[in-house]
Amino acid sequence: MSLKLPTWEDIQAAAKRIQPFAHRTPVLTSSLVNERVGASVFFKCENFQKVGAFKFRGATNAVQLLSEEECQFGVATHSSGNHAAALALAAKMRGIPAYVVMPDNAPEVKKRAVADYGANITFCEPTLEARETTLAQVREETGAREIHPYHPLPIIAGQGTAAVELLEEVPDLDMVLSPIGGGGLMSGTGLAVKSLHPSVRVVGVEPQGADDAYRSFASGQFVPSIGPNTIADGLLTSMSPRTWKMIQIYVDEVVTVSEDAIVEAMRLVWERMKIIIEPSSAVTLAALMTGAVSAEGKKVGLMVSGGNVDLARLPWVCHNCPTLGS
Amino acid sequence: MSLKLPTWEDIQAAAKRIQPFAHRTPVLTSSLVNERVGASVFFKCENFQKVGAFKFRGATNAVQLLSEEECQFGVATHSSGNHAAALALAAKMRGIPAYVVMPDNAPEVKKRAVADYGANITFCEPTLEARETTLAQVREETGAREIHPYHPLPIIAGQGTAAVELLEEVPDLDMVLSPIGGGGLMSGTGLAVKSLHPSVRVVGVEPQGADDAYRSFASGQFVPSIGPNTIADGLLTSMSPRTWKMIQIYVDEVVTVSEDAIVEAMRLVWERMKIIIEPSSAVTLAALMTGAVSAEGKKVGLMVSGGNVDLARLPWVCHNCPTLGS
Repeated sequence: MSLKLPTWEDIQAAAKRIQPFAHRTPVLTSSLVNERVGASVFFKCENFQKVGAFKFRGATNAVQLLSEEECQFGVATHSSGNHAAALALAAKMRGIPAYVVMPDNAPEVKKRAVADYGANITFCEPTLEARETTLAQVREETGAREIHPYHPLPIIAGQGTAAVELLEEVPDLDMVLSPIGGGGLMSGTGLAVKSLHPSVRVVGVEPQGADDAYRSFASGQFVPSIGPNTIADGLLTSMSPRTWKMIQIYVDEVVTVSEDAIVEAMRLVWERMKIIIEPSSAVTLAALMTGAVSAEGKKVGLMVSGGNVDLARLPWVCHNCPTLGS
Repeated sequence: MSLKLPTWEDIQAAAKRIQPFAHRTPVLTSSLVNERVGASVFFKCENFQKVGAFKFRGATNAVQLLSEEECQFGVATHSSGNHAAALALAAKMRGIPAYVVMPDNAPEVKKRAVADYGANITFCEPTLEARETTLAQVREETGAREIHPYHPLPIIAGQGTAAVELLEEVPDLDMVLSPIGGGGLMSGTGLAVKSLHPSVRVVGVEPQGADDAYRSFASGQFVPSIGPNTIADGLLTSMSPRTWKMIQIYVDEVVTVSEDAIVEAMRLVWERMKIIIEPSSAVTLAALMTGAVSAEGKKVGLMVSGGNVDLARLPWVCHNCPTLGS
């Protein structure tokens, strides 16, 4: 069975479709970061996107694309993270209900965010099996339509719109780096960049502890994550068949970075740029800082995926603290 | 003896003078914050200013105003905070040395920042007397010219330029709120606002634990801080004779906020706006959130003074942590 892939036209249509709902996020620079890595770095700040993450682009595109009939009973997903909040808000804006299945051990701050956006939450045990079973039950009861976080074509097209904006603002980039989790942002970014400027190098970055794309890319065979473990909680998931196929086509290189490098990059951005980015977003700068990607003298765009962090549990605080554990 | 006060023309000249050196910082909004306080709030983000604080405006104006002769031996100050970094960078840009006297218990992160900007640091005991004595020695040895952090006329004029930019961007504000520490930002802001739009209400905000301006304003007599104590470390200082005089002229009201309110406001901004502001900058939003200032339905500008925070010691983390104390 051949998988249908999104096209450049899908991204252009998505950009138009989500424009009334999503923020056009700023592109920030820092002379200190530039000095530190010996390159000109452009941060595409999706941490300032609605719900604090690029996920709102894909969710909005997917929800807006549904016909009246398709969405009459609402939309549903299982997610402990940014996709849940994104789908909740996208559904609210469409005026339809959202049903979210969350593991009961999800951080309080994420439960609160999803509830604040008006979603109906069903908690389940924190296993993939429980999540899928519970979601199936919820869908049966409600008739809601499932919106998967990174596999659907409209989701990927929506995520690609962030890179379009980046290239509109900085057309002469030499390279664009994106984190790879499920691969939605990476594959949308790759498609957008190669469609607009085929000569721009596209690089994916993963934590060493969740390197399914790196190993898949190296072997040419899809290698799912088994027991991934990283502070970059948005990058724990494995690619989907569609995002893996797109990454093979549109990505020139995949590199990995260590946990220490992620934390150092994240802290540098917080301290010197005064913006809050989540660990998953710090992997790209970490790749520049460690030399995993050589960018000397180049103009480099970084996709900053989000800014949702549990502020009470920062990686540089209290590693030995009996109160918080860690 | 009558004190010379800065004029609107001084602020206009300062704006032109510092323009090649300082950032024009963004004005940000948040629909969530607006809902929360029932007003339209405009954050003038000096946390994105060079050295992470508005202090760079005043320091640059003061340093650039010096004649070749006046600054031939450099500039000097005693400071544990943002003024030290600001003066160091302003001096570096003018190509003259900066001498900074710092208490030896200043946070590592601040020592590093001041050193990074190329200042010559002399450490002393953490008392005002030791700081003043040491500064006198340094000046005698070097011939450097002292630049006080908030009393000099060019400093105040420089700080006033931030409010000018805010009003250029949002001309129809009903009110502008600024923190009061030494009073440099507050008095510059008051002068700028009342010169441009005399009908705009100007409000100063202080922590309850460092309320010298509040008590002075209430009694009409200058009441210095004795043993101030607040998490808002930029607001521990007492006003100078000049800033106190200007606050009497240009400020309509001074209010105070509790430590809890400061922390809550700071956390709201971090969590929902994804930007890093320091506790001193959170007092104004705290005043709106607590109702200390009634702004229902109004358009309110907030002067966000800076974003320099010790990320390893956040107020909402580890209150009971034996590792970190506090």
